[in-house]
Amino acid sequence: MPPETKLQIIPLGGLGEIGKNIMAVRYGEDILVIDCGLMFPEEEMLGIDIVIPDIQYLLENRELVRGILLTHGHEDHIGALPYVLKQINVPVFGTKLTLGLLEAKFREHVFSEEIKMVVINPRETVHIGCFSAEFIRVSHSVPDAVGIALHTPIGTVLHTGDFKVDYTPVDGEVIDLHRFARLGEQGVLVMLSDSTNVERPGYTLSERVVGATFDEVFGVSKERIIVATFASNVHRLQQAVYAAHRHRRKVAVAGRSMVNVVNIASELGYLDIPAGTLINLEEANRLPRSQVVLLTTGSQGEPMSALTRMALGDHRQVEILPGDTIIISATPIPGNEKLVSRIINHLYKHGATVIHERVSGTHVSGHSSAEELKLMLKLVQPKFFVPIHGEYRMLVKHAELAREMGVRPENVFVAENGNILEFTRKKGRIAGKVSSGRILVDGLGIGDVGNIVLRDRKQLGQDGILIVVVTIDPESRQVIAGPEIVSRGFVYVRESEELMEDARERVRTTLDGCTGRGVGEWSAIKSEVRDALGKFLYERTGRRPMILPIIMET
Amino acid sequence: MPPETKLQIIPLGGLGEIGKNIMAVRYGEDILVIDCGLMFPEEEMLGIDIVIPDIQYLLENRELVRGILLTHGHEDHIGALPYVLKQINVPVFGTKLTLGLLEAKFREHVFSEEIKMVVINPRETVHIGCFSAEFIRVSHSVPDAVGIALHTPIGTVLHTGDFKVDYTPVDGEVIDLHRFARLGEQGVLVMLSDSTNVERPGYTLSERVVGATFDEVFGVSKERIIVATFASNVHRLQQAVYAAHRHRRKVAVAGRSMVNVVNIASELGYLDIPAGTLINLEEANRLPRSQVVLLTTGSQGEPMSALTRMALGDHRQVEILPGDTIIISATPIPGNEKLVSRIINHLYKHGATVIHERVSGTHVSGHSSAEELKLMLKLVQPKFFVPIHGEYRMLVKHAELAREMGVRPENVFVAENGNILEFTRKKGRIAGKVSSGRILVDGLGIGDVGNIVLRDRKQLGQDGILIVVVTIDPESRQVIAGPEIVSRGFVYVRESEELMEDARERVRTTLDGCTGRGVGEWSAIKSEVRDALGKFLYERTGRRPMILPIIMET
Repeated sequence: MPPETKLQIIPLGGLGEIGKNIMAVRYGEDILVIDCGLMFPEEEMLGIDIVIPDIQYLLENRELVRGILLTHGHEDHIGALPYVLKQINVPVFGTKLTLGLLEAKFREHVFSEEIKMVVINPRETVHIGCFSAEFIRVSHSVPDAVGIALHTPIGTVLHTGDFKVDYTPVDGEVIDLHRFARLGEQGVLVMLSDSTNVERPGYTLSERVVGATFDEVFGVSKERIIVATFASNVHRLQQAVYAAHRHRRKVAVAGRSMVNVVNIASELGYLDIPAGTLINLEEANRLPRSQVVLLTTGSQGEPMSALTRMALGDHRQVEILPGDTIIISATPIPGNEKLVSRIINHLYKHGATVIHERVSGTHVSGHSSAEELKLMLKLVQPKFFVPIHGEYRMLVKHAELAREMGVRPENVFVAENGNILEFTRKKGRIAGKVSSGRILVDGLGIGDVGNIVLRDRKQLGQDGILIVVVTIDPESRQVIAGPEIVSRGFVYVRESEELMEDARERVRTTLDGCTGRGVGEWSAIKSEVRDALGKFLYERTGRRPMILPIIMET
Repeated sequence: MPPETKLQIIPLGGLGEIGKNIMAVRYGEDILVIDCGLMFPEEEMLGIDIVIPDIQYLLENRELVRGILLTHGHEDHIGALPYVLKQINVPVFGTKLTLGLLEAKFREHVFSEEIKMVVINPRETVHIGCFSAEFIRVSHSVPDAVGIALHTPIGTVLHTGDFKVDYTPVDGEVIDLHRFARLGEQGVLVMLSDSTNVERPGYTLSERVVGATFDEVFGVSKERIIVATFASNVHRLQQAVYAAHRHRRKVAVAGRSMVNVVNIASELGYLDIPAGTLINLEEANRLPRSQVVLLTTGSQGEPMSALTRMALGDHRQVEILPGDTIIISATPIPGNEKLVSRIINHLYKHGATVIHERVSGTHVSGHSSAEELKLMLKLVQPKFFVPIHGEYRMLVKHAELAREMGVRPENVFVAENGNILEFTRKKGRIAGKVSSGRILVDGLGIGDVGNIVLRDRKQLGQDGILIVVVTIDPESRQVIAGPEIVSRGFVYVRESEELMEDARERVRTTLDGCTGRGVGEWSAIKSEVRDALGKFLYERTGRRPMILPIIMET
């Protein structure tokens, strides 16, 4: 009897972090990938635009990769696809809106080959290699989100995607609890579940709560209303549009991604805009302000966003005026708190009123709190459980929750990106590790900025740079020009002429000590200059700028 | 009849910002200063250590400055004093603990003259120039905090300092509501009040709440307990010490500032440590872990703090072990959320349990929520009101609150740093502006880093630098060495040799076009090189590094 083929689940991103979600599932000679997202850079990744997953493992097994399944259309689930598909062109499966949002991203990229995209509706199943993949509707902060049941020869893998349990969703499409329950009865081998909000007790509120707040605020606001939110939160936009309509206001849209999503979502039938409601910004500026609602990006205080430009008085078409009411319908993502706070202060300086997260009801999360996660665990009652989508402490907490809910302790795995989780019908274990990690995208460069460059950027950003140039005649070994010292980001030079002159003198002394040494010793000379000047500058200024000696040969 | 002398109140810091609180009060030929704090740098102030207020106004009127009164011993109220006292040596008045904490700071500075420090107890009054300054006890997150009633020839100015209303403070010293009430009856001309927490509805909880949590956690923890909090929160430390004592644990202290404060506070009688309770870290390591509590700094995830070093496995004496319980007894200050979150994840990776802000009861604020601010407004019922200590939106909100509480709208002033608020017995107005602002301290340099340096640091940190060096013989106007290109923080050079070679070629072409041009045109040549290379690099990489051409003369 040949050895039993084992099921492998390999998270390539999204574990121990928020973002860049990507999961490979392998059985025998078939690999399916679930999601392929990006992450926004950490603070110390200076100058980096986005972070995408390292897909070395997929490239090494490129003949086995059968396709990529998408759970929903957020950046942290689809954002790396344009980069990944250029390296490995396989069919992409997703719901209609998810693929619509993906197509819009593709416009900014050039592909040498055509990309095959296949629309799958919730409750539909697609057969790919040895797998059958079934899409199951969930609630989330973007419409048309699904979980995926991947039926494999040895059992079902259930990936929840990002989800919450909203009994009264804006589009009426409630999470398919029946299907999750039925799968649970039939038996699920492995469940992978969203851990983002596991630290929140209780239940996440329904999206409708925000609609009620909109109605309330729209009812009392006398002047213009500006709603800032995530562009992809189509249900939020829908509620703002309906509230505007009920209060006899027209709606205009500001911000490129907001305009994009409004177009895609209305075209595909996910956003209903009553006839005559949508106007452009010029028309909005001509109407009395009491008849206008603006929908805009910038709820995270992003420096280039429409709301930020409005707040700083930099927006070409929208000027914030006293009496404006701005609803910031979002919670700052960790790291953005100060950006958002600054925008709010600027808006107040223009005389506007800002309704933000500290006032309840302007935002609800798209992720399950603890009680919803328990409901999912109870319905599905999986044999094995792997918490996904979350920082390490969240995975630990979600693992604890699963054990409390009856999953056997040895069947719960707190895994890391790159781990090979290997399952038979009876047993699971972490069986090894594949290459995984972060690829940094900076401008057009993908992966050409690594730790050395980042370390240099950090030092440059903190204390600046001093460049010491000297030209030497390699024959006579005499200095024939320089030393010249130029600094940037170090001190305001005009006020530090004496310091710079002393520094130059220090370099001269060091060079004198090196007179007569040959070409082969230049790196030693550079290092002496660096040490001497570094010591001098630290004593005088308490700073450690980068010191870059350059020796030119004639 | 000579014109009536007007009272001037001039905030030099702390309005429209959190931190660097400093307020000048002038009547005729007398100026008193209340507080003199620092601010921690904003994210975009790269490399800056601290920010202190611009005291140009005080220096220009140095003969009139009679003294500096301190409300309490936090950095944002005393931290700029060492810098300011070196420029203007006047007596400093504060409570015993405040001056004790200040003296500890002085040890890191060298003063050419002696500093006069005068201890004032709550309910005591000191006469300085035409003023009588009366200290009034308030509750705050450091003991011995006061508000100040400054009696002037035309009426009383009441400065609340930072305060909350704690009816059950740990040291039993309740905020002196009677004195505030009496002053209110007698008539207060101007009140300046803390706006930090005005956005929070209701009441701030008593510090005792945290003590109850400590007791609860200490009761169930089987292994070592580590409490991270602000060093200056002596009442918090007191509660941890008592809880340790009750649960038969010894206490050891980690982190320089924590050790400092524990020493000062016990010496001055503000911290009671039962005999035999305090041990050092070596002793703690020898005891069973169930008998140990560590008090440590690092509740904000500060990179060099003791807790951060423990979490990263870098602490010389403390290794985090499975079973440890870490209580983070603080809320992340805006901007520190990600730092704190990262530390928590690291602690979990060592197998520790972390009890942090999402679990209630590990922290309470030291600032009044809206209802306490209303109580203060009601008791004092000032004629004029100026909200202080807060970002702009908080000042606006506090101003609204004051109007709701009956202060006449025209008597409420939302002011900015540098505004001259001028009062007679009957009228108030903003009468002008003095120089005010931020002085950046970087290492030993005070004010030598300004906008140009910061702008350069930002560009260097984002995209790095390319240095182009060429040596020219000024006689023949020929290039005799170079062009050499060196980059830092731009790309990983080994993988970009072709790019750098192309860049060099582009520089050569540009220089060829400049052949024969003279010394006087070198800045034009530099600018051409910068433009050509900048364009080339942006096309090829999508990045805009700083480009620094250096022309050397032989």
